[in-house]
Amino acid sequence: MQEHAPAADALQRLADLLQADMTDVNRLIVERMHSPVPLIPELAGHIVAAGGKRLRPLLTLAAARFCGYDGAHHIGLAACVEFIHTATLLHDDVVDESELRRGRASANTLFGNQASVLVGDFLFSRSFQLMVDAGSLEVMRILANAAATIAEGEVLQLTIANDPATTEEAYYEVIRGKTAALFAAAARVGAVVGGRDAAVVEALDAYGLNLGLAFQIVDDVLDYDANQAELGKTVGDDFREGKATLPVLLAYARGDADERAFWTRCIQDEDQQEGDLERAIDLLRRTGAIADSAKAARARAADAKAALEGLDGDAEIRGLLSEVADFCVERAY
Amino acid sequence: MQEHAPAADALQRLADLLQADMTDVNRLIVERMHSPVPLIPELAGHIVAAGGKRLRPLLTLAAARFCGYDGAHHIGLAACVEFIHTATLLHDDVVDESELRRGRASANTLFGNQASVLVGDFLFSRSFQLMVDAGSLEVMRILANAAATIAEGEVLQLTIANDPATTEEAYYEVIRGKTAALFAAAARVGAVVGGRDAAVVEALDAYGLNLGLAFQIVDDVLDYDANQAELGKTVGDDFREGKATLPVLLAYARGDADERAFWTRCIQDEDQQEGDLERAIDLLRRTGAIADSAKAARARAADAKAALEGLDGDAEIRGLLSEVADFCVERAY
Repeated sequence: MQEHAPAADALQRLADLLQADMTDVNRLIVERMHSPVPLIPELAGHIVAAGGKRLRPLLTLAAARFCGYDGAHHIGLAACVEFIHTATLLHDDVVDESELRRGRASANTLFGNQASVLVGDFLFSRSFQLMVDAGSLEVMRILANAAATIAEGEVLQLTIANDPATTEEAYYEVIRGKTAALFAAAARVGAVVGGRDAAVVEALDAYGLNLGLAFQIVDDVLDYDANQAELGKTVGDDFREGKATLPVLLAYARGDADERAFWTRCIQDEDQQEGDLERAIDLLRRTGAIADSAKAARARAADAKAALEGLDGDAEIRGLLSEVADFCVERAY
Repeated sequence: MQEHAPAADALQRLADLLQADMTDVNRLIVERMHSPVPLIPELAGHIVAAGGKRLRPLLTLAAARFCGYDGAHHIGLAACVEFIHTATLLHDDVVDESELRRGRASANTLFGNQASVLVGDFLFSRSFQLMVDAGSLEVMRILANAAATIAEGEVLQLTIANDPATTEEAYYEVIRGKTAALFAAAARVGAVVGGRDAAVVEALDAYGLNLGLAFQIVDDVLDYDANQAELGKTVGDDFREGKATLPVLLAYARGDADERAFWTRCIQDEDQQEGDLERAIDLLRRTGAIADSAKAARARAADAKAALEGLDGDAEIRGLLSEVADFCVERAY
């Protein structure tokens, strides 16, 4: 988790390279948030304006351009991917009862759970309108399947929430669904509109999937990274919500009876006292749970990079996508 | 609101006529509720098993058969329509904090709001997978547009909730979105897969739209119909939730200062005391609000029937669809 890794601006450089496309995507997002019902653009605008890295739509744009696509459908599909993501965020915050999102008051805090659920549904519907506009049945199937897989991952996460004895398999199943499936679909549809053969489509899917897994594992690690607090990020959200993320599973599995009792109390019972987060971070470090989680993330990033190797396409974009994989596991922002 | 109107079994006769198709639809619904995550079929099964009239999928089947369609895509589209409806019900119950649905404990009561939101998302995604299977871009566009319109109607309803001074225009805008848009789309896609020309497609859309408007107005009237209590339905749910439905708008508009203060306290402030529901029902009757709401519903049903007149297609189904429109405004179940 270096703070200034060599690849640290790979994502920015990719965004710069695709700036013209990204401007079109952002314009389309604002246009499609519109509705005669004012609360919709108001609430949707709140979460969209909060920014975020636009990593998923960037994957669609990059994959399409890597494949030499020179049409315009990738713009709509990138916006579609971002709408699916945004709808998911709105519903996630309701489910998690989150008060903050990207450092600002979350939509459910400001507008209420009811509005967040319904505007999430609206954005979800808009995403399907956008994919219909692209006019490709294959693309629609990929994105509709991704949406179903995301929902399955979210429900599975709910099912195993608060269980520090959750298996690693179940954890990976959750993050494959809730995070990696959309990364995979985002990259895959770029290759499909690019008209490339199955090998390239599968390779970009594998890149996206592994990048998504790496990204989520790192996210789960950073929640216990005290350095994050200095960067203005909150630490310990997952802990307070009793989320059984990879670092916790590993520390629990490696813990003695006393430590397991600690995790059970904090994660399962959500019965937490002052000093518990500090003890959790200490245990996660001492058991090697943080280090091994970071290692697992690096392995997925390596898989992502390997998927691109030898693939015929735009060399500059391939290089940047490869660096983005490194960046995602080294990010400290 | 006669209890035994002549057309009272039209819906059942239509269902009987289309029984073979409906069996296929029900089988497909059960099949597509499946997921490796057990909570999904468990929760979805709870709401699907609760029954309901399957009115919307029946519209798709009837429209397709009316148009002489002899393929199989109408089965998937009917299931798709029911999945959209079911997803909406799950989210509605979260938004309304409803404890009952179709006389049973609601999914959010049994499984929690979180699971209801996420399984609703899953069913919504499944509906899009089902429409992709039908392989028609036009059909997908119709259903994706309907989904967006439903969400807009729901958000608008939230915006004007608790305001007894809401205009009739706003009320109709809400029910057109939250209810009638799906009725219209359900009938329309039947005509589209049936391969019929624009005139027939528009006529069936108009039939569905007006049927949906009539259906919702009647639903809003029945919430204040004391006879319903004898039939095992709850009465006064909308009143307790402070919903500004058509009967309330009319009674408020016609009320004197004292009556308006009563509606403002009960609907806007949701400050209700014993005897208030009885007074509300009395006011709704005395001001003619119930009678005029029922009249408005009958006018929409007449429009629905008029849309079918002179339309080339299966005469038996046209006759039953026409009777269904009467039935929906005379239903007392």
